Amino acid sequence: MNIAMLGSGFIARFYANTLHAQRRKDRILSVYSRNIVNAKKFAADFGLSSYGSEMEKIIQDPAVEAVIVALPNHLHEEAVLACAAAKKAVLCTKPLGRNAREAKRMLEAVEKAGVFAGYLEDLCYTSKFLKSLASIKAGSLGKILWTKSREAHPGPHSDWFWDKEKSGGGAIIDLGCHCVEISRNFIGKGVRPMEVMCWADTQVHPIDAEDHAIGLVKYENGAIGQFEVSWTFRGGMDLRDEVMGTEGTVWLNGFLRTGFEMFTTGKGANYIAEKAESDSGWLFPVGDEAHELGYPQMFSDMFDAMEQGREPLETFYDGYVVNAILDAAFLSAKSKKWETVMLDDWRGEGSGSEEKSRVSYDEKYYLIKKELLPNGEAKVILKDKVSGEIKQATVKN
Amino acid sequence: MNIAMLGSGFIARFYANTLHAQRRKDRILSVYSRNIVNAKKFAADFGLSSYGSEMEKIIQDPAVEAVIVALPNHLHEEAVLACAAAKKAVLCTKPLGRNAREAKRMLEAVEKAGVFAGYLEDLCYTSKFLKSLASIKAGSLGKILWTKSREAHPGPHSDWFWDKEKSGGGAIIDLGCHCVEISRNFIGKGVRPMEVMCWADTQVHPIDAEDHAIGLVKYENGAIGQFEVSWTFRGGMDLRDEVMGTEGTVWLNGFLRTGFEMFTTGKGANYIAEKAESDSGWLFPVGDEAHELGYPQMFSDMFDAMEQGREPLETFYDGYVVNAILDAAFLSAKSKKWETVMLDDWRGEGSGSEEKSRVSYDEKYYLIKKELLPNGEAKVILKDKVSGEIKQATVKN
Amino acid sequence: MNIAMLGSGFIARFYANTLHAQRRKDRILSVYSRNIVNAKKFAADFGLSSYGSEMEKIIQDPAVEAVIVALPNHLHEEAVLACAAAKKAVLCTKPLGRNAREAKRMLEAVEKAGVFAGYLEDLCYTSKFLKSLASIKAGSLGKILWTKSREAHPGPHSDWFWDKEKSGGGAIIDLGCHCVEISRNFIGKGVRPMEVMCWADTQVHPIDAEDHAIGLVKYENGAIGQFEVSWTFRGGMDLRDEVMGTEGTVWLNGFLRTGFEMFTTGKGANYIAEKAESDSGWLFPVGDEAHELGYPQMFSDMFDAMEQGREPLETFYDGYVVNAILDAAFLSAKSKKWETVMLDDWRGEGSGSEEKSRVSYDEKYYLIKKELLPNGEAKVILKDKVSGEIKQATVKN
Amino acid sequence: MNIAMLGSGFIARFYANTLHAQRRKDRILSVYSRNIVNAKKFAADFGLSSYGSEMEKIIQDPAVEAVIVALPNHLHEEAVLACAAAKKAVLCTKPLGRNAREAKRMLEAVEKAGVFAGYLEDLCYTSKFLKSLASIKAGSLGKILWTKSREAHPGPHSDWFWDKEKSGGGAIIDLGCHCVEISRNFIGKGVRPMEVMCWADTQVHPIDAEDHAIGLVKYENGAIGQFEVSWTFRGGMDLRDEVMGTEGTVWLNGFLRTGFEMFTTGKGANYIAEKAESDSGWLFPVGDEAHELGYPQMFSDMFDAMEQGREPLETFYDGYVVNAILDAAFLSAKSKKWETVMLDDWRGEGSGSEEKSRVSYDEKYYLIKKELLPNGEAKVILKDKVSGEIKQATVKN
Repeated sequence: MNIAMLGSGFIARFYANTLHAQRRKDRILSVYSRNIVNAKKFAADFGLSSYGSEMEKIIQDPAVEAVIVALPNHLHEEAVLACAAAKKAVLCTKPLGRNAREAKRMLEAVEKAGVFAGYLEDLCYTSKFLKSLASIKAGSLGKILWTKSREAHPGPHSDWFWDKEKSGGGAIIDLGCHCVEISRNFIGKGVRPMEVMCWADTQVHPIDAEDHAIGLVKYENGAIGQFEVSWTFRGGMDLRDEVMGTEGTVWLNGFLRTGFEMFTTGKGANYIAEKAESDSGWLFPVGDEAHELGYPQMFSDMFDAMEQGREPLETFYDGYVVNAILDAAFLSAKSKKWETVMLDDWRGEGSGSEEKSRVSYDEKYYLIKKELLPNGEAKVILKDKVSGEIKQATVKN
Repeated sequence: MNIAMLGSGFIARFYANTLHAQRRKDRILSVYSRNIVNAKKFAADFGLSSYGSEMEKIIQDPAVEAVIVALPNHLHEEAVLACAAAKKAVLCTKPLGRNAREAKRMLEAVEKAGVFAGYLEDLCYTSKFLKSLASIKAGSLGKILWTKSREAHPGPHSDWFWDKEKSGGGAIIDLGCHCVEISRNFIGKGVRPMEVMCWADTQVHPIDAEDHAIGLVKYENGAIGQFEVSWTFRGGMDLRDEVMGTEGTVWLNGFLRTGFEMFTTGKGANYIAEKAESDSGWLFPVGDEAHELGYPQMFSDMFDAMEQGREPLETFYDGYVVNAILDAAFLSAKSKKWETVMLDDWRGEGSGSEEKSRVSYDEKYYLIKKELLPNGEAKVILKDKVSGEIKQATVKN
Repeated sequence: MNIAMLGSGFIARFYANTLHAQRRKDRILSVYSRNIVNAKKFAADFGLSSYGSEMEKIIQDPAVEAVIVALPNHLHEEAVLACAAAKKAVLCTKPLGRNAREAKRMLEAVEKAGVFAGYLEDLCYTSKFLKSLASIKAGSLGKILWTKSREAHPGPHSDWFWDKEKSGGGAIIDLGCHCVEISRNFIGKGVRPMEVMCWADTQVHPIDAEDHAIGLVKYENGAIGQFEVSWTFRGGMDLRDEVMGTEGTVWLNGFLRTGFEMFTTGKGANYIAEKAESDSGWLFPVGDEAHELGYPQMFSDMFDAMEQGREPLETFYDGYVVNAILDAAFLSAKSKKWETVMLDDWRGEGSGSEEKSRVSYDEKYYLIKKELLPNGEAKVILKDKVSGEIKQATVKN
Repeated sequence: MNIAMLGSGFIARFYANTLHAQRRKDRILSVYSRNIVNAKKFAADFGLSSYGSEMEKIIQDPAVEAVIVALPNHLHEEAVLACAAAKKAVLCTKPLGRNAREAKRMLEAVEKAGVFAGYLEDLCYTSKFLKSLASIKAGSLGKILWTKSREAHPGPHSDWFWDKEKSGGGAIIDLGCHCVEISRNFIGKGVRPMEVMCWADTQVHPIDAEDHAIGLVKYENGAIGQFEVSWTFRGGMDLRDEVMGTEGTVWLNGFLRTGFEMFTTGKGANYIAEKAESDSGWLFPVGDEAHELGYPQMFSDMFDAMEQGREPLETFYDGYVVNAILDAAFLSAKSKKWETVMLDDWRGEGSGSEEKSRVSYDEKYYLIKKELLPNGEAKVILKDKVSGEIKQATVKN
């Protein structure tokens, strides 16, 4: 695949390092940056044949088969619309828009143009995520009741993130987009998100946007998708997911505790600090950052999907749903109550209302709980189906 | 100390096992149970000199110096009032009341009677909790921004827990009381809890009470105390706490991951299952359950406090504040908005309103973030104090 | 129990802190130290009624029921012999002797005098150790094949440890005594240790004794007890045990990873360093050090045993066996071959030679391995009972 | 790169799955198997253009640029010699030979033929390994004193592994080859391995080869490389490495504890067991097995090296050194003493004899240890440079 990269900053470099590694066959041809100096340097660093500061020119190059949008949030729409106009396949970094309106316009543009469009939600492509999702879809956790996705670190590295106008918000838009989509996958993308309750505050930094937020997304089947996002965390990058189902539990640690522990006094001759947070004492590096964050797996799915004429796992529609949920989160943080998720284009399952399962113990009782006793008998806690009275009894197992 | 035990069920036995172990000098003299058969068996099992089914008689025995209330929630008030009437020191299991009104009446009764009263909140006495609290009080985490306390398991073992009338609620009252008090300690007991947002649902069991809930408690200084409680968790008993401060982080795992891991095929000749959830495969026992849950440390503090004429770490007033917070949580779960914590007896700090700290970079700018670069320079993200504009710059470190 | 403490250094203080805590009923009455100033200070700190620098006087005090020997290794024998002469119960810290000859003389002295004698091997009393030992004895791991006990840290805190004459050796005698006795318990104290292979070196410190060693102890039933000891470890105190059996595995982490994780920038106002190795970054405190190291459980067993007229879990005979094993380890480190454990007083099981279990698959074959295949069939690896030929086959499960 | 695969079993499939994934540009063209049915099936499964049961034919195909030897151990030499004869680049799976003589002949053949030769030691290519190795080479652990590499599981899946004639040994040859090479890398490939002490036994299975072994490899600079290998482990595949240096520590867990934890009751509708050892309770899957085991990174290095005309990270010479070390291990297991590593072709550093570093405290004393005290002073343990006497002192810090 011949690729044009829009953007030359941190994320563009991360993408390029991923694509030009491990003997992958896809190649970046050209790069666009608003700043021609940056474009030139990026092209030199990655051995690209061309670069420029005119976005349309780069996109319209006939050799380009796919365009990656790795620009600040406020420039996504313009870039995606230009790709659609040029009938080029487009992969857009997360979040799709600064809000659902933007995301909707992008979605409509690519669908109208009939071009391939992929949503670069890398954390829904990590190996741990994909494997646990497969187990969950196979039923090993039963019905999903609750998920928690957490991303927290000491704050992003570029100025525009901290500027609400450009980014669309603070930690909610920057990190919450990951967390919400992770939960949607675990709960089931076909299950409609109904309403959101969110707390957000600016606890530490001198900015207008929130640097810490907790949100609960309620789905039509009663499941809750919790997100925890922060730019105030100390200790590194905390990426953890949890899933609770009626038959099981999943705990994922994506970064700080992955089986790699190191202590150093820091006296080593040539030691170079790996993280600003600390360069001595106990450190928890990850082996291959790009892989642990899902980048290579994500691009493989994207380009395979293009070649196979199928949708990728993460689509612009997903990006739109995520933005709609985050819109409700921002509203709730202000209104201090649950806010409805406004989705005028819902493509999932119809209104199967929340159903409860009740396990009958016998004709007269529901079973609340059964517990084995050391003597081999079992203790049951029962509820009378008619009177509602609760009682316990000891029975042969 | 000569002790009378009110109650003969699971928690009473746990307390008795703790007290009559490790060569402790305090002794249980007598036991009360509504059911004389249970009282007799308890007395025999623990070598007590007397037992009975008349509560007042047991309490009023002149040899008794302290009474432990280990009864179902709906019987706490009656027992505490009887102790106050008899001028006996009283230690009451958690939660103090089914609601703040009950708790307030108990608080007033013991204060009016002038008797020693301790709130048996064991999870605020675990060794990990006490040591991390000491570090936090010494400033090692800076200002506390957020705490999370989580207790989740597959559900309690006695019928009355499942009966809302008797217990006062479901997982919120049973488990939330622990979590709320843990967070209060970390944030500071003198900081006033202002309002609560809570989601609660009955996701799995055929009961009226909630079997799963998430709550956020907002404190006057802007800190958030999050609680996560569930009777729907699969995998054992999940007890975890987290604290985020401006200068650090604490993660505690109280039960499922404490450095004790065991795999067994289950083929071993005489193996006896330790947990109903699983008795083969990977298991995570705890060494000394009572110690890991804080019981011995709690009773040491209680009786030391009595002898030293000081308050214990956990008082009836704490129990009352916890109940008031949980009352707001129940309200919020219904109203779907933040609800005020109603505390007509607040003994903490006055209304120091939420203050933000802003770090100046120089006369013109606030510092948003500073990050070391590999080349030894530093990248700073700054905010203009007047215009609010955000920019980044590279500087010598 | 009324106790006399011999010694006033680090370990004596640790013992005293343990005994005079958690409302325990045993009391230290008096303390002996070679240095009267230290004795006086110790007595003041722990509220003792008497102190002195004449050992016999302290021991012979009629009020004293039990003597704790908490002196440097080269003074154990003298102290134990004095207790035996005075017919006083004696508890001796680890290692019992500097070698098996010393240990044997101490063992004979207390047995001849008929006094109670306990070996203060605290790490065989931790809650994790006791619970896993109970599981193993109940058969949950099948036959024990291998154990590994590891103790490593940056080196001891007092000068005499580093002086081979006084201590009897380096890391092997200081730390190996724990590891060897842990393994003996898991494998079975009745199983005879036969021979030892040991590597030892002085890798870092300017001392004569070894600061790092690895040893393998072979038992009569074929099990191996591995010890890993070091004074060169960086990162804290590493206490880990592992057990492999035919039906399972146990992994214990006693100190550095117990479910307590903390990150601090070190900027906190009043923060006091907890470990010399690091006071910022990620730290791993333990909740209650004495409990995690087994001290309170150990003293409970000792005094309970005295009162009940039974032997404690750890006896002078155990100390003697440990010394004999360590003697062989020192020999092997020099001879560079396996050395026999010289036990002229073996009280365990007779010479049941090493037996192997062979599982028959059918009349013709032994079963080497059976593995489930994804299609529900099973793959078996078989060995012809006569020809010895190995083959694989796929069978219905 | 156009590749011929020799072998169609478990490891050949693992390699093929790795190569034909993640949009890699290298392709397998053809496959050889002794059994034509297996060859045909393999070709069909991976979309290969040709297959056959005549090894030379497959190797000599002019379209083939590189040959991968994925055959049982006893067939490596024949295959490698055929590649050398055909002047084809050859990548050989681990271990290189069944012993050093075989390995030496293979090494000489490829060197004489002047063909590219790579040693497929995947565990020296995992991301955790490569990153920790880079840190160690940069000095963050100081001088390496000891390494431990452990591989243990319930036994291999094919019959030939269990047949000593075909495999060259049991767990030592199968798993020890990984562990030894991991340690060599950490200690430094230029440091000569001098002698080996090894215990080995057949504890569980009805086979002639060892199913459990522990070995210590002593290097010229005094460092020890420990290996622990077993086919008797219960609980999954245990892959752990540890490194101790004068300035730090590294702990790697490659498989069983990587931040992916899952509990399932096993009741889930379509659940398919992932590991034979257990399919319910707590499970510890890995995200992407091939990546966690180093396969993709290994092939990238191999083919990049071929194209760049450089040596790969793991060469046939490395395979030869590993075999020489394992030969000494087998000898030692029988002789019960340390055995010299016989390397008649040593290409590393010359005989820099083991040097010790001594830290002077002042003119009179060496410093043994310095420890900060709570009062801000420091305690030093010193050794008189002349008399050797050891003493402690308290000094201002």
